[in-house]
Amino acid sequence: MVKVDLALVHYPVTNKNREQIGSAVTNLDIHDIARAGRTYGIDNFYLVTPYKDQQQLIQEIVDHWLEGHGAQYNANRKDALEIVRICNDLDELFDCVQVKWGEKPQVITTTAQTQRPTVSYTAVRQEILAGRPSLLLLGTAWGLAEEVFTRSDCILEPITGNQQYNHLSVRSAAAIILDRLIGNFS
Amino acid sequence: MVKVDLALVHYPVTNKNREQIGSAVTNLDIHDIARAGRTYGIDNFYLVTPYKDQQQLIQEIVDHWLEGHGAQYNANRKDALEIVRICNDLDELFDCVQVKWGEKPQVITTTAQTQRPTVSYTAVRQEILAGRPSLLLLGTAWGLAEEVFTRSDCILEPITGNQQYNHLSVRSAAAIILDRLIGNFS
Repeated sequence: MVKVDLALVHYPVTNKNREQIGSAVTNLDIHDIARAGRTYGIDNFYLVTPYKDQQQLIQEIVDHWLEGHGAQYNANRKDALEIVRICNDLDELFDCVQVKWGEKPQVITTTAQTQRPTVSYTAVRQEILAGRPSLLLLGTAWGLAEEVFTRSDCILEPITGNQQYNHLSVRSAAAIILDRLIGNFS
Repeated sequence: MVKVDLALVHYPVTNKNREQIGSAVTNLDIHDIARAGRTYGIDNFYLVTPYKDQQQLIQEIVDHWLEGHGAQYNANRKDALEIVRICNDLDELFDCVQVKWGEKPQVITTTAQTQRPTVSYTAVRQEILAGRPSLLLLGTAWGLAEEVFTRSDCILEPITGNQQYNHLSVRSAAAIILDRLIGNFS
């Protein structure tokens, strides 16, 4: 069993002008990343936002699939959304994960920027498969704010294909990162 | 340069009762898969639907980002959506791709079902990196209809994580498949 959590950060992140902002929650981020998280055995998928109206929106979406009509319509979606949790901020997130595992997790940030010192997927995968509690942080909007990087233990190398273009959606990036760190295929 | 195209099929696909249906187009399928396609050097991303209202919806979304306000707001999105094409059906798709490459592509279907004879990612990757024209078909709704499998050369093994659960969104599946077939990382 791996001890991995994933958090999608809505504050603090940056806008296209590199200014610090809080972003709005996207419905399909919740669904797609919960489904990918469930596929790869992620323990919890945390949505980090301090905005009460956004937290209420997340809760209403999740409740629809856990207890409302959605739970009857599609039980697979219920299975996925059961791993969703809401956090106000990074402090609450870090506390919550540390209490759960009984030790401080390695905090791993992700970025599409290419000028930062990064660690390889292979290195992080080894730690994960060895059972080390690991918390993956992904940013919405134009990516995580500087403060989040300074509070992390390491930064995963950006996802590159075979092109200069590196503007994946955070939903696609989350899926690829989980597959690289935990997936198996022939 | 790889010679890979990806098509998202909206007809013929199946519903949750395994009946053959045509599905509605999802806005974020267009964006997410175009962005992943652009990242991994996919030549064209084809949306296959016979419904004229759905084709018009796709065209309006794409035009907004290629020529409308979106083109100024986010040039990266324009780069991605430039690879999008619309096809009425599989016949038109197969003709179009064959004419483009001057030879018949290998047609590769994808499925989350585990009981079909499949080929490995490694085998298909070798063909792709050797320059063989390849057309990847992904299904919306509950997956590709039987007819599509019978018209393909091979079926890629289902994506598994470390769990029994295999209900990824087609957006996540497309990203993971492209990364396994074309991606590189350390």
